Amino acid sequence: MASQYIDMETLRFLLYEVHQTQDLLGKGRYQDYDQQTIELFIDAVKEFCDKDLFPTIKEMDEQPCYYKNGRIHVHPRFESIVKTLGEMGFVGAGFSYEDGGMQLPITILNAAYFIMEAANNHVSGYAGLTTGAANLILSFGNQELKETYTPKMLEMKWGGTMCLTEPQAGSSLSDVVASAKPTSEGTYIMEGQKIFISSGDYQYVDNFVHLVLARIEGATTGTKGISLFVVPKYRPEGDQLVENHVATLGEFEKLGQRGYATAHIGFSEGGESVGYLLGEANQGLKYMFQMMNEARIATGRMAAGIACAAYYASLEYAKERPQGRKLTASGIKNIAEPQTLIINHPDVKRMLLLQKAVVEGSMSLISEASVYVDKAELGGASEKERYHLLLELLTPIVKTYPSEMGKTAVDMGLQVLGGYGFTMDFILQQYYRDIRITSIYEGTTGIQSLDLLGRKIPMQEGKALQLLVGEMQRSIEASLGHEQLAPYGEKLSEQMSTVQQVLTHLMPIALTGDHERYLADATIFMEMMGKVIVGWQWLKIACIAADKLKAQNQAQLTVFYESKIHTMKFYFKYEVAQVKGLAKILMNDQNLTLDQVPHDFF
Amino acid sequence: MASQYIDMETLRFLLYEVHQTQDLLGKGRYQDYDQQTIELFIDAVKEFCDKDLFPTIKEMDEQPCYYKNGRIHVHPRFESIVKTLGEMGFVGAGFSYEDGGMQLPITILNAAYFIMEAANNHVSGYAGLTTGAANLILSFGNQELKETYTPKMLEMKWGGTMCLTEPQAGSSLSDVVASAKPTSEGTYIMEGQKIFISSGDYQYVDNFVHLVLARIEGATTGTKGISLFVVPKYRPEGDQLVENHVATLGEFEKLGQRGYATAHIGFSEGGESVGYLLGEANQGLKYMFQMMNEARIATGRMAAGIACAAYYASLEYAKERPQGRKLTASGIKNIAEPQTLIINHPDVKRMLLLQKAVVEGSMSLISEASVYVDKAELGGASEKERYHLLLELLTPIVKTYPSEMGKTAVDMGLQVLGGYGFTMDFILQQYYRDIRITSIYEGTTGIQSLDLLGRKIPMQEGKALQLLVGEMQRSIEASLGHEQLAPYGEKLSEQMSTVQQVLTHLMPIALTGDHERYLADATIFMEMMGKVIVGWQWLKIACIAADKLKAQNQAQLTVFYESKIHTMKFYFKYEVAQVKGLAKILMNDQNLTLDQVPHDFF
Repeated sequence: MASQYIDMETLRFLLYEVHQTQDLLGKGRYQDYDQQTIELFIDAVKEFCDKDLFPTIKEMDEQPCYYKNGRIHVHPRFESIVKTLGEMGFVGAGFSYEDGGMQLPITILNAAYFIMEAANNHVSGYAGLTTGAANLILSFGNQELKETYTPKMLEMKWGGTMCLTEPQAGSSLSDVVASAKPTSEGTYIMEGQKIFISSGDYQYVDNFVHLVLARIEGATTGTKGISLFVVPKYRPEGDQLVENHVATLGEFEKLGQRGYATAHIGFSEGGESVGYLLGEANQGLKYMFQMMNEARIATGRMAAGIACAAYYASLEYAKERPQGRKLTASGIKNIAEPQTLIINHPDVKRMLLLQKAVVEGSMSLISEASVYVDKAELGGASEKERYHLLLELLTPIVKTYPSEMGKTAVDMGLQVLGGYGFTMDFILQQYYRDIRITSIYEGTTGIQSLDLLGRKIPMQEGKALQLLVGEMQRSIEASLGHEQLAPYGEKLSEQMSTVQQVLTHLMPIALTGDHERYLADATIFMEMMGKVIVGWQWLKIACIAADKLKAQNQAQLTVFYESKIHTMKFYFKYEVAQVKGLAKILMNDQNLTLDQVPHDFF
Repeated sequence: MASQYIDMETLRFLLYEVHQTQDLLGKGRYQDYDQQTIELFIDAVKEFCDKDLFPTIKEMDEQPCYYKNGRIHVHPRFESIVKTLGEMGFVGAGFSYEDGGMQLPITILNAAYFIMEAANNHVSGYAGLTTGAANLILSFGNQELKETYTPKMLEMKWGGTMCLTEPQAGSSLSDVVASAKPTSEGTYIMEGQKIFISSGDYQYVDNFVHLVLARIEGATTGTKGISLFVVPKYRPEGDQLVENHVATLGEFEKLGQRGYATAHIGFSEGGESVGYLLGEANQGLKYMFQMMNEARIATGRMAAGIACAAYYASLEYAKERPQGRKLTASGIKNIAEPQTLIINHPDVKRMLLLQKAVVEGSMSLISEASVYVDKAELGGASEKERYHLLLELLTPIVKTYPSEMGKTAVDMGLQVLGGYGFTMDFILQQYYRDIRITSIYEGTTGIQSLDLLGRKIPMQEGKALQLLVGEMQRSIEASLGHEQLAPYGEKLSEQMSTVQQVLTHLMPIALTGDHERYLADATIFMEMMGKVIVGWQWLKIACIAADKLKAQNQAQLTVFYESKIHTMKFYFKYEVAQVKGLAKILMNDQNLTLDQVPHDFF
């Protein structure tokens, strides 16, 4: 078992030096925090992870969730974890004081979750979905719903879920058929089934509060007829919990995250399931989308966390495992020499550096987006609008880049171990399975890419992209102040022009109304944008590292900062170099994936 | 469960139309075959696969091999499969009549294995390794060894294995320490342990014949002191099988191929293990390499087979699953329409076409290499040399391209299913796990890449590459005869120049003796070469398809041939377009993965 899953020095460097999170503290909503209190919180999270989460990750996979007697059973060591999650106040950490929360900056909360997900990616979702459900009730519920449900959820005595997907509809929410029949008491009788309900049932909470998308009888078709309901597994009546006939019909056995329960839920099974309308009728999807954005960032963060743990597991192996020898000038190996550590082979170094570049670049990107959330919270109206737009644009990328490139990074990590990587004796194979869901959760990569190119880029006539370009320009300008970084600033600038060229090519197609052609290669566009945006993050990181190197001379830290600049160079050499090839695909006008391709071509 | 795992029409098209395998028949070693007898054989293989192999693939994963009481136990349904493999003569199918074989052309044998591996990739290795071991005995053994061991192996009453890897050495065979102590009878007492021994133990054969790399006491260090031994699990003495103290010490539990036994073997456990020197002392590695080349092609073939099965599984889902709607000119979906099949979404079509392009391109590449084997067999000395050189150059690519891009293809296949792809209810997750070993087996991608750039490209002053360029030129010339194909011929030509540019850049580095720098990005070179070489295969396929379209007008077949040309265009648009970006990496002289990168940069 690997012993390290995260580098806290890098996390702190990203939080305080690259993204200046301390500037958010002591102001407005975050006025009660300073760096010291934040550090105490982070330390407590790390300790919890070291003690409880990381030691259970392999067990939770090896003794996965199972369905028995109508309930899903999660690994027994999860019981004390749920308790601690509740005690530490994770569910409401970001909520306002009046809602029982801690008003923690989102950047810090995401950093804390990142540590947890690197330690054990099977656990965070249980808390995260409860947060999301409670947040919806607090945002749109009436006083009674708030008082009845959220206090127990904040303590994690009750779990929360999101019930969107149905067997016949998948990602197509317009086709949701779950129904809600009004009663004379203003409540609803819920009918239908939901699948893929993450954390939808387990034995260590007393109740579940399902947030359910359904149609009120007679509502219009499509997404405009969808409302949101609170449907508890047990109805609180006085001090009692009364059966509400929400049945767990099964558990999905999965490739990975096998310690994370995925339920098949049925309503009004053997009796009536009472539901409570949240907010106004027919606004359900709009409400849900508030949470979807958070969930998308959370998914990217989880992917980055898994890739981070995989990186340190493969690094540890590479630093301990002797195998083979260095090549000599004759091209022949000297077998009289002892074997060398595999980290000394260039190809292994390449795989490790790619992992590092993807992991830290993703961490930085997530912090960038999180800071936008906090700045929108703290700022006035124009700042709110600015950061909201930036966030809208970045969200699909923050979700997708870590999911897709994190998958590649974990794959490299497994490869570093050779044959051992394929065995169950090492954890790489688990991370390889676990991370695979992240490009599917909360809208697949294909769907995120349609969102990016189809909605976010054209939004307000490209205003969000303009703002983002402005942010990137600032990093480029900063790079010009460092001789060794300036060429990379120029390269980033060049790639931004490439993106602009691509859009100049694609936009006229959108204007003809041929949206399908405009969006046909949206996934390639996403891949290209991800490489450019993370290139920007690396440039930003390198600039800060170069500043620090100029300012001080501590030998230990010198290596740390130099390693960041080195990884930036690596990222530009190996990843940014591929941007033009992707642009070439996007500017190739052959339509090879549209309607004219008949089914029997396959 | 998917119902299709291969398209026989495409396989036949590749065999007879693209690669003209029928021209090999009726001549020399293959004089007893014609297309009709070959077709009978292929039909019998397909029937066996439909009836026995494909229906067991999921079970073999779900009830994997396990170790108990010193033996490895494979799924009970494997018993009748072993029997059929023996009866059908698979082990010796390619051997000469005098060795008890069928003298089947290797191209046909590889096609047969491809069908088997698409049907069930957990099975073929049991036969393949027995073939390899028997082949070594037949090639280098004395009469007694041949007569004692090979007849039972050809019937698959006894299994064969290759024992190379040791715990402390991994891929570094120079560090093998297993030892052989001479006895007065001319035999040897074997000591040591071997790991990752594929098909190393199971309950359905009577004996195992291990081909073991070991050092005769006092032999020199390094690879030159390694000899090859035949070490049976039980020694045949008269009609008896006598215990030879070869113990199965354990089984490796794996991410995939869980129905394929991977043993940990120990010699002289509780008694002496007698071994028999094969051929001359200290020639072991040279002998073994004869088989390694076949095993490398077999690994690429297996990867292509898995990717093929995954393609048809995801295609079946895409053609049956309705979800979402097409975009209209307004960019809004019309929800009054019924949902569309997901195959109608461009992004899904893109993922399916990539799978098709990788699978069929890989199949074609494997046939190309197989035909070289057969032509070398049939030809005179100069042809033998020519095809031997071509084969040497292609082998690492034939192993690596299907392994690496097949992994990507299976990943796409899983993605096509969305959330369902991540569940154990569908087989994509199994293929995703199964294929992962192929870039590790028989030398990792990193090692194959060192072989390609370090040995095969410079070999005989680049003669192999010259020959390959000649072969490719022939396809380019053929393409110029078809108006719609000529631009792709030109593109391929352009990419061949790109490869040449890269080599012109790299060669001077090799000449300075800085081999480590020369080879640092060998894996990127492999990736680039793979894309170009498979681009050549697609051009070749498209030329034949265009010829056929010119020659006939059957509507059914028209679609078939048009689909091949379409897939070629897809491959060039999406894959060949990335070659220049890879070349850019290779011509970037920053050394970011060499010695100057200290361990604490990670």
